[in-house]
Amino acid sequence: MNATKQDVVIAGIGQTDVGELWDVSLRDLAVRAIQAARQDAGGLVPQTVYIGNMLGASASHQANLGALLCEWAGLKGAEGTTVEAADASGGVALRMAYMAVASGMVDVAAAVGVEKATDVLGSDIESLSVRNLDADFEASEGQTPVGQAALLMQRYLYENQFPREALAGFPVIAHANAVNNPHAMYPKAIKAENYLKSGTVIEPFNLYDVAPLADGAAAVIITRAELLPKNFARPLVRVAGSSLVTDRLALHDRQDPLFFEAAAVSVRRACLKAGVSLADVDFFEYSDITTLHAVLSLEAAGFAQRGQGWKLASDGTLLLTGALPAATLGGHKARGNPLGAAGVYQAVEACLQLRGEAGGSQVPHARFGLIQSLAGTGSTAVTHVLERRDS
Amino acid sequence: MNATKQDVVIAGIGQTDVGELWDVSLRDLAVRAIQAARQDAGGLVPQTVYIGNMLGASASHQANLGALLCEWAGLKGAEGTTVEAADASGGVALRMAYMAVASGMVDVAAAVGVEKATDVLGSDIESLSVRNLDADFEASEGQTPVGQAALLMQRYLYENQFPREALAGFPVIAHANAVNNPHAMYPKAIKAENYLKSGTVIEPFNLYDVAPLADGAAAVIITRAELLPKNFARPLVRVAGSSLVTDRLALHDRQDPLFFEAAAVSVRRACLKAGVSLADVDFFEYSDITTLHAVLSLEAAGFAQRGQGWKLASDGTLLLTGALPAATLGGHKARGNPLGAAGVYQAVEACLQLRGEAGGSQVPHARFGLIQSLAGTGSTAVTHVLERRDS
Repeated sequence: MNATKQDVVIAGIGQTDVGELWDVSLRDLAVRAIQAARQDAGGLVPQTVYIGNMLGASASHQANLGALLCEWAGLKGAEGTTVEAADASGGVALRMAYMAVASGMVDVAAAVGVEKATDVLGSDIESLSVRNLDADFEASEGQTPVGQAALLMQRYLYENQFPREALAGFPVIAHANAVNNPHAMYPKAIKAENYLKSGTVIEPFNLYDVAPLADGAAAVIITRAELLPKNFARPLVRVAGSSLVTDRLALHDRQDPLFFEAAAVSVRRACLKAGVSLADVDFFEYSDITTLHAVLSLEAAGFAQRGQGWKLASDGTLLLTGALPAATLGGHKARGNPLGAAGVYQAVEACLQLRGEAGGSQVPHARFGLIQSLAGTGSTAVTHVLERRDS
Repeated sequence: MNATKQDVVIAGIGQTDVGELWDVSLRDLAVRAIQAARQDAGGLVPQTVYIGNMLGASASHQANLGALLCEWAGLKGAEGTTVEAADASGGVALRMAYMAVASGMVDVAAAVGVEKATDVLGSDIESLSVRNLDADFEASEGQTPVGQAALLMQRYLYENQFPREALAGFPVIAHANAVNNPHAMYPKAIKAENYLKSGTVIEPFNLYDVAPLADGAAAVIITRAELLPKNFARPLVRVAGSSLVTDRLALHDRQDPLFFEAAAVSVRRACLKAGVSLADVDFFEYSDITTLHAVLSLEAAGFAQRGQGWKLASDGTLLLTGALPAATLGGHKARGNPLGAAGVYQAVEACLQLRGEAGGSQVPHARFGLIQSLAGTGSTAVTHVLERRDS
């Protein structure tokens, strides 16, 4: 379908490598991503910059990334501010930029995700990354996001009675797809037997059930189609639907901790706004923070019945050739999980798919992509529907 | 002037006391402010909550305040997210809520400012509050926001050749006005001789030149006039203008560190949007983080020529009976400076003025109020024009 003037479109994308980037600072990571996105967008200059970041003030002792990054990215004076919803921060930045442009109040906005946390001042990333849980009632008791997910997976295994080995497909697919992503942290294929042999991290999770925490930055430039440069030739990606929903933060406050309610509601609203049904979705970039997150995201969205999500990796559904390709460029598991930046990486990767630039991971004829940022154990969910349009 | 349907109005306000509130948690502070604002707004229920906060993740080890506070304030499922631009965070929350409602994308939004930092985990507020400077090039060298302001004040005194004693009026006015604010941290009048006798904090600042860091929470409910309950009888406060501008973060990168450029541009844009000139402004809630901030804010806004701002306290201009009352309910100096919450306190106080509810600090016939949040040494400035409308 052709773009209309008022379409809110992603006109440029940029990303850095994901990994333990000890030789690059927080600001340099972000600036590289912003510059790449601006170049990709044909030189459009953002007036407004939303920065998704979780740990800047904690890990790098740097607050007010808005002023810092606008200056360092050559955008002095621009409206820059940080937005934060823990590891869903990148999704929030995307939503804020979308809202600013869709409302007509801003012509060109940037959504930036940046995280720099693997070598930090006076602390360690594990102790910092638990700040997405309830500090007074969960983290203070020693709970961690991965620990909570492991408890939930124990329960999920008990309720649904299947062998843990059936989950191997989730990391196997992610790693297979990451081979085609030059920015991925672990672009190496693994076999199911690697999964089975790898050591336990926390029962019942093994090494390959948990996405690696990482540094990285990604950026997208958002505008209305009518404002694109005349010579803009690339396929357009429209932000067709957007939704942010919160759930109770603490797991013990939820009636049904095995159902990600915020994820479910946000998918429903984003699809409604976009006018699409789940059957229209050509691929799903979920937040596979752990295998449990991947499984429950599939069920929350409605791609599987309750208790059936675990089957979608082993039955081929999530393969690039399946009905619902997922983690198409590695997902959190193999691209790496740069926390507050992850949501913008998802947007960049979805754009590559919709533009037909995903190389060996290309999903044929992809028109609609669903991307979802989750915080902690699903306490915040930000979901977007992106659509390919011809310019 | 009567309100029109599309006016973006502040329908409810709430605030907690400001001070060292060691017996109240971060979440409880915020919830009290939100509940008070909802009650004041006749029960309007916000769909979207923007939380201005600087140090939650650092001081309380709590990220994702969006999910936490929506749940604890009885708004489970609402769109909640943190926005951060250091000590200007409260102003950012106000602007985001304004944009969401003005765009028509949201009907009812809350802007919340909360800071809880005077008793913190494993650190102290002084080491945390420097995170609004450049971490790599300023804070790492031992610079602090107050230290930078003191250096600038030395230069300002040298360039403009006046006795430091002439600055006494700034804290004297703030403290005199705070007597009428039941929520103020220091609601006690001081005399110029107190100022002169108080000990030096950092040359040339004495105790009364520096606003005390504090805990506190404030909230406002924003909607369009057409959506107000039928029986809404209170005078309306319209958000008439709004602007967020950044400057270079590090002081040494600015061409003229004695001019707050972001503050100047944001005042100009907010007034332009509101269709008012400086002469229309009935009072100014500035960010008197230090006396230097007060002086340079007056000059940046254009209320005084360069090098002349220091005169406005001693010549009576800033008194409640003067041409431009300032810090009318105590300002940062005497209300207290709750960092990321301060900008929402300013909005609450301006609403009290515009509604005629400011008691002994009432500015007669106030119609237009200018409020301004600053981060650090002016690296981010968020300015709003609020206007009284008859409902």
